Amino acid sequence: MNDQTRLSLEEAWTLSVDVLEQNGFSKDQAAAIARSVVAAQRDECHSHGLYRLLDCVRTVRYGGVDPRAVPEVADQAPGVVSVDARGGCSLLAFETARQPLIEKARATGVAALAVNNAFHFSALWPEVESLAEQGLVALAMTPSHAYVAPAGGHSPLLGTNPIAFAWPRPEGVPFVFDFATSVVARGEIELHRRAGESIPEGWAIDGAGQSTTDPSAALAGALLPFGGHKGAALSIMIELLAGPLIGDRLGHQTRPADGSGEGAPQHGEFILAMDPQAFLGTDAETRLQQAEALFEGITAQGARLPSQRRHAARARSHSEGVAIPAALYAELVQLRDGEAQT
Amino acid sequence: MNDQTRLSLEEAWTLSVDVLEQNGFSKDQAAAIARSVVAAQRDECHSHGLYRLLDCVRTVRYGGVDPRAVPEVADQAPGVVSVDARGGCSLLAFETARQPLIEKARATGVAALAVNNAFHFSALWPEVESLAEQGLVALAMTPSHAYVAPAGGHSPLLGTNPIAFAWPRPEGVPFVFDFATSVVARGEIELHRRAGESIPEGWAIDGAGQSTTDPSAALAGALLPFGGHKGAALSIMIELLAGPLIGDRLGHQTRPADGSGEGAPQHGEFILAMDPQAFLGTDAETRLQQAEALFEGITAQGARLPSQRRHAARARSHSEGVAIPAALYAELVQLRDGEAQT
Repeated sequence: MNDQTRLSLEEAWTLSVDVLEQNGFSKDQAAAIARSVVAAQRDECHSHGLYRLLDCVRTVRYGGVDPRAVPEVADQAPGVVSVDARGGCSLLAFETARQPLIEKARATGVAALAVNNAFHFSALWPEVESLAEQGLVALAMTPSHAYVAPAGGHSPLLGTNPIAFAWPRPEGVPFVFDFATSVVARGEIELHRRAGESIPEGWAIDGAGQSTTDPSAALAGALLPFGGHKGAALSIMIELLAGPLIGDRLGHQTRPADGSGEGAPQHGEFILAMDPQAFLGTDAETRLQQAEALFEGITAQGARLPSQRRHAARARSHSEGVAIPAALYAELVQLRDGEAQT
Repeated sequence: MNDQTRLSLEEAWTLSVDVLEQNGFSKDQAAAIARSVVAAQRDECHSHGLYRLLDCVRTVRYGGVDPRAVPEVADQAPGVVSVDARGGCSLLAFETARQPLIEKARATGVAALAVNNAFHFSALWPEVESLAEQGLVALAMTPSHAYVAPAGGHSPLLGTNPIAFAWPRPEGVPFVFDFATSVVARGEIELHRRAGESIPEGWAIDGAGQSTTDPSAALAGALLPFGGHKGAALSIMIELLAGPLIGDRLGHQTRPADGSGEGAPQHGEFILAMDPQAFLGTDAETRLQQAEALFEGITAQGARLPSQRRHAARARSHSEGVAIPAALYAELVQLRDGEAQT
């Protein structure tokens, strides 16, 4: 079961696009999704890599995403652009609205993008990184389904609500972080359950609101926010900004598509872009250089920058390609060839 | 030593203004500071209450703040306003630029305020709360002096870097949180040292980078960020946004004024304001009501909203006044009457 299949980045790309198009995704939707999952696989973020193609196909079959949706951009205000994903995946919607967002940020200094009515499964860092590659500072957040209890509470209410940030660096790749506001991802607990292992104290509570080390009890209970009441506060902020502020759902108002007909997986994403040129004018270059003192201060202590491990993986993948489990590869090939999903 | 002196809110206000004006602060600077410390005292945030007047006076004597500075507002971009505190306290600078910020947020949907070259000692929540009272969503952050080690590091580099957020509620006071990105405030460790008590594991490391429960060793070492690498990432973001992005110092480029002549206490603050009307138009009211479902879901579990305790204290203080240690009261009276600070 530990057999790995190695693919070049080009092979990973072609396989991803073919799986998606074979399963009903339009050419544009498929390309946007493939860009995200191949980037995640390349950076060895396995949980957001090619594995997620299975989710995409499953969600189409359950009616939880429109695979041929054409996103629609709307100008809300001088500093606000929105894009209606129209039930499609968030990724094409983001790509469609990225240039209008960049133009607004350059014109006003700071601009927001609201992505609405989207199926969202992807990592946020490729999106903020793509904005930082254009010289902008970017922040993104999205709710997820309600798996996390508020600090001091006992039942799932908040999503795992990730937040991502990117800062342009004068040389090399941007500084980027992207983390869930739960202590761990739900998938991490699922992996412990499958392996028959207990989970550490502090990750989750059971259905009665008590601390548990049993992954099955945790999955029936709730994850805990990272950092206690501080992480929970941040998670609430994410729900509010990427929900009501942009006219979209709160985490607990969504449900994964599961074939029951009661799924409501679609929700919003909130992205902010800031242009250092607008803040700093001709000082922008000097000030971006000043920020390097902070990064150097961190690495000089032997501490790691948040994106450091991903960037090392990226360099490796460009020369060596990526490795995915052979079983996953076989399943993707079946999906590409039009066979039933197991 | 546990004697308390009770003051009406009006008495607390008059005492604060008199202490500040007697010690060189201009009428406007004194009023802005008094509004902040009395609000904090009223909400029983003792660490940002009248006690901070001692800091203000000490910092004037050490030359770390210009008590008569007149802030200067500049229009940077359609969505960016900046205010140069010109070496004065951040509070008057913020108040001077608040209306321009509000107007920009209403015009563009999202606007940023850069406060520069400010002496900063105050809680951030009164500022974001004042924006939410005008119907805006607000986010504020500032670096502090370098007391916190990055996750995986061993030496102070990051500030305790607080972040505050406010959301307007259709009825009653806004939803507000305000927290430091260190596990605890430095003052908390100082209190343990004075009381001869050890501190819990996980708060701090000693000068050799090892975990410590000795408060003196912790003060000679570094605080830890809350929530491990996630809290540290957030802290780095705060340094970048409230430092280089707005043309101001990083935490480790500042030092408290201590009479040595080497203090460099002044730094920046970054504030973002967003107008739900610009995002939502006529839907704004419905969507603000939708957010209430999240707050109700939290309190229905018996969990507390971040601002709940403060708001209960506020109601009490309006009817009963505030209580401060008799020794602090005596010291403030001495300062008001022009006697030397002990």
